[in-house]
Amino acid sequence: MTRREFRDLVPPATARDALADLAITAGTDTVPLAEANGRTLAAHVDAPLDVPGFDRSAMDGYAVRAADTFGASEGDPTTLRVVGTVRAGTEPDASVGEGDAVQVATGAVLPSGADAVVPVERTVEREDTVDVMTGVAPGDSVMPRGADIAAGDAALGPGTTLGPRHLGLLAALGHERVPVRSQPDVAVVSTGEELVQPGEEPDPAAGQIYDVNSHTIAAAVDATGARATRYTPATDDEETLRETLADAAADASLIVTSGSTSAGAADLLYRLVEEHGEILVHGVAIKPGRPLLVGRIFDTPYVGLPGYPVSALSVFRTFVAPRLRAVSGRPQPETATADATLATRVRYDGGRRRLVAVGLVADGDGDLVAYAPAKGSGATTTLAETDGIVQMAAETSLLAAGETVTVERFDDAPIPALLGVGDPDPVFARLLDDFATSRFLSLSATDASRWVDDDVPDVTVTPTDDLTGTRAEPLARWNREWGLVVPAGNPDDITALSDLVDGDYRFANLDDSLAVRTALAEHLETLALDSAEDTAAAIDGFHRELPGIESAARSVAAGRADAGLGLRVTATQLGLEFVPVGTQTLGVVPNPTRLDKSSVERLRDHLADRLPSLLTETPGYAPAE
Amino acid sequence: MTRREFRDLVPPATARDALADLAITAGTDTVPLAEANGRTLAAHVDAPLDVPGFDRSAMDGYAVRAADTFGASEGDPTTLRVVGTVRAGTEPDASVGEGDAVQVATGAVLPSGADAVVPVERTVEREDTVDVMTGVAPGDSVMPRGADIAAGDAALGPGTTLGPRHLGLLAALGHERVPVRSQPDVAVVSTGEELVQPGEEPDPAAGQIYDVNSHTIAAAVDATGARATRYTPATDDEETLRETLADAAADASLIVTSGSTSAGAADLLYRLVEEHGEILVHGVAIKPGRPLLVGRIFDTPYVGLPGYPVSALSVFRTFVAPRLRAVSGRPQPETATADATLATRVRYDGGRRRLVAVGLVADGDGDLVAYAPAKGSGATTTLAETDGIVQMAAETSLLAAGETVTVERFDDAPIPALLGVGDPDPVFARLLDDFATSRFLSLSATDASRWVDDDVPDVTVTPTDDLTGTRAEPLARWNREWGLVVPAGNPDDITALSDLVDGDYRFANLDDSLAVRTALAEHLETLALDSAEDTAAAIDGFHRELPGIESAARSVAAGRADAGLGLRVTATQLGLEFVPVGTQTLGVVPNPTRLDKSSVERLRDHLADRLPSLLTETPGYAPAE
Repeated sequence: MTRREFRDLVPPATARDALADLAITAGTDTVPLAEANGRTLAAHVDAPLDVPGFDRSAMDGYAVRAADTFGASEGDPTTLRVVGTVRAGTEPDASVGEGDAVQVATGAVLPSGADAVVPVERTVEREDTVDVMTGVAPGDSVMPRGADIAAGDAALGPGTTLGPRHLGLLAALGHERVPVRSQPDVAVVSTGEELVQPGEEPDPAAGQIYDVNSHTIAAAVDATGARATRYTPATDDEETLRETLADAAADASLIVTSGSTSAGAADLLYRLVEEHGEILVHGVAIKPGRPLLVGRIFDTPYVGLPGYPVSALSVFRTFVAPRLRAVSGRPQPETATADATLATRVRYDGGRRRLVAVGLVADGDGDLVAYAPAKGSGATTTLAETDGIVQMAAETSLLAAGETVTVERFDDAPIPALLGVGDPDPVFARLLDDFATSRFLSLSATDASRWVDDDVPDVTVTPTDDLTGTRAEPLARWNREWGLVVPAGNPDDITALSDLVDGDYRFANLDDSLAVRTALAEHLETLALDSAEDTAAAIDGFHRELPGIESAARSVAAGRADAGLGLRVTATQLGLEFVPVGTQTLGVVPNPTRLDKSSVERLRDHLADRLPSLLTETPGYAPAE
Repeated sequence: MTRREFRDLVPPATARDALADLAITAGTDTVPLAEANGRTLAAHVDAPLDVPGFDRSAMDGYAVRAADTFGASEGDPTTLRVVGTVRAGTEPDASVGEGDAVQVATGAVLPSGADAVVPVERTVEREDTVDVMTGVAPGDSVMPRGADIAAGDAALGPGTTLGPRHLGLLAALGHERVPVRSQPDVAVVSTGEELVQPGEEPDPAAGQIYDVNSHTIAAAVDATGARATRYTPATDDEETLRETLADAAADASLIVTSGSTSAGAADLLYRLVEEHGEILVHGVAIKPGRPLLVGRIFDTPYVGLPGYPVSALSVFRTFVAPRLRAVSGRPQPETATADATLATRVRYDGGRRRLVAVGLVADGDGDLVAYAPAKGSGATTTLAETDGIVQMAAETSLLAAGETVTVERFDDAPIPALLGVGDPDPVFARLLDDFATSRFLSLSATDASRWVDDDVPDVTVTPTDDLTGTRAEPLARWNREWGLVVPAGNPDDITALSDLVDGDYRFANLDDSLAVRTALAEHLETLALDSAEDTAAAIDGFHRELPGIESAARSVAAGRADAGLGLRVTATQLGLEFVPVGTQTLGVVPNPTRLDKSSVERLRDHLADRLPSLLTETPGYAPAE
């Protein structure tokens, strides 16, 4: 493997300039009005006709000569002869002479001779006459021909992003088709031998993973007003990659790849771009995102994004999306920032501008609190568990807790109304399904408690035996059965945890951040065996900790273990057998500062409504006394 | 015509409740990931597999046994045997024994035996060995299997609006298709005998106009996440309208009509809805919008909007859009309001809640100023010349100038950077075409001056002879030729204005809000005839004032006049002949409080760049000395 060091990192502004210089082009399309919503007008549009095209009655009433109504009042009405009626969309069949009136509808043509309309509310209809109870002036309740817009007047300028309102004006002017800027075609190519597509089966032993970036980047491209085409992920095979890029160059105004840019990866991409084009930027002084390629390949503008999903999307958002919006003529988003108080300090000494992905939650006063989830840019869950980024200048090494930061929102997805943290209990997860809207982050009881100290979450899901007197009363509590999940039919006839000690059985344990593992640890203490440590050591696999509440049970289902730690509900759902060991009480504990927050109040009601039936339906669950 | 009075107006909240009770339904679609962007997840999605599916190297470097690196430092490196290499997407071909290292790329499978990765930056590569210059702990730079998300964990909840980030997580989990809420089908029907469609030719004598509402409402429906189908506008013919509504009912989850709801119009719609369904709300105490029908027809939820485009769109936005968003599961827009200072007072004593459409402009300090354009809800140009609405409570009769108001933005179209008012000069209009972004409102010099007093516009386009010493220096000035536009070949041999006096010629004059008309008035004073009034009276058509700068010339082109007031440029563009009468100097005068506003500075540069060539290119234009 050849390695390329990033000795030539450029500042973000230089990367932006290089992108601005790329000749990404878009022409003009002429599209029907019905397809123009959200597009950008490519040329100015003038009025080809007067709107209205005639003197139009602005009210239901009577068309009159204003002079005839002079001095009329409620007490002394003027009586006029009704000589006709005009509905909207019909030619007047009468004209208005002295002393005449013609009944008109809103939108009707003003009959000749008339110069004003008396609103119907100010008249009394008689047999063939009408009593007018107010004087009107010439022009009253009439919109003269061309008063809305006159033929030849400028209507809309190029660059207007067409919304319903603009389409209305274009329709009023009779435009059936309108010139709009073409959407630049963007080829999106994920690279990496390890990638398989959703629908295929990845081989974990060979390090295969699903392709994420072509999906996120294509959707993000579409959101800028450009049009993404996803290419089959190119392997790191040189010939295949060259062909894919050549194909893409033939069709697209811009090629965006992701992956294969990291210093240690085969630097095939660099070589190809250098061989068939030009590299203008190798890397940018930003984290995440260092590996950013900007250049041209096969005479087509080219951008290479990093491979980590969060990095790829952040770098796209920061550098590429503004350029694509400019090409498409889309407005740069206006309201995409929010001020928030940082809950925990962020340190970074790397000397590069850092983009810190943060989640947001409203505190008890409705002010926003920003928190950084633990998993970082290597995790795809970070994509869904954050709301925006905080930029940390290269010369800043610390953002202190309590500092006000500006969060650049990823998009206009709403900030979840409720933030829960703690143990990922399956029943609570289902309960949140129809609670609009929530986010739940799995944290160990210790971490969850620290987050509450930092005043981040609205509620914590935690074993209630741990609760000290200082915390608020749980909104709800329930019991769940935990124990050993074994294969269907229990072939090894395991009946208790002690059967695993010094046995020939492979045990699948769970991560000690999970409450059920805490229950196991406490149970071990109570076993009348040797010390808990010795017992643990005597169980094969005790120290092989698996990450999710179902992970051990799934190991059993997959034949990788003979028994696993888990819940009865998981055993039932996976069609496995369950050996009960204990019952654990979980509670939903509100953050004391959020007791009055409306989503917490809604959750209290929601729990009261829905928890009882969920507990009844779910194997191994029961209300807590 | 039967008239229906709105005696049963309901408060807005009641109308909203009636809409909330309408059973507008949407099912579930299962769509490919590539089509799921912007849709709303219909069911919870759990992780079907561990991500990553293997213990993954998080860095480029060397997979090692952490214990082997104990005590290693720059000064005292530990040397390990390099026994293999693992790239991402390949199965390890070596395992790590004591004293071994395997070179790994980011994303590669951690070889068996290894429990940590030393980043490449902390190593020095030798022939067959590597010097490790730091101690690492077990788990360092490794993302264990399932650490991102473990099989069985909850990934995304129902109700999530899927953006690029969520699509990324779904792709990472291998979901090829996802369950999303169906988009409710909404039938959009404009009613009114007067309507013709863009592409057809309206007959102004019969009061025909283009259909606007089906275009605006369909686009607004689409923006809520529902799916609009436009029906051919129904005439007021009962049978046709009944059939259209019956067809729509068969296909749609909601029917939205506009028009034919005004009290004076034939109340066909009321009758049809009452006959084939039920009316729940007849009218709502709001202006504009009084005629709002809510009910059911042919067993399908039904809403009838008013006919005026601004009213129809306002009422749709206020009452119908939130309901459709709720059905589609779209978030209600979060950041759709802006605080602004009201520039001029708004009076309304109608006793109904009023929605005042306002435009917005940033003042010299960047604070927003709201202004109400003059044309009102009957004008389609109001659609494009405003940015949002101010709600005025029913019990409020006055919003004072200088009051802070909350403006509900129509959409996320940007507020124009520059607001110009005054004379609609064709060259200035073209100049604004490539100025991002501007709005220009035609106002008489007097009105423009009043707007400047109220500190609304950024610049005014006005004859510069009118300028008093109190105003700022113009950013630019130019001359334009005005005079008489006559048919090609000048068949009547008109050579001066005096030819029109007591002649047999029909003259087409322009509105006195236009600067060219001011020039004409001044010119009349200089003619050595009788008084200016007498001269005017002696010209046939002098008092027939037309609205737009090209209107009189277009009258001549259409044969409705023998001579018209206009500019040389207009005569040239319309292929007519021009009889010069005078030259007028126009200037772009900045509002003194906006001299430092960046868009005004940009305009100054833009004028310097572009005006000279435009003046050269345009017939009848020249730089002013």
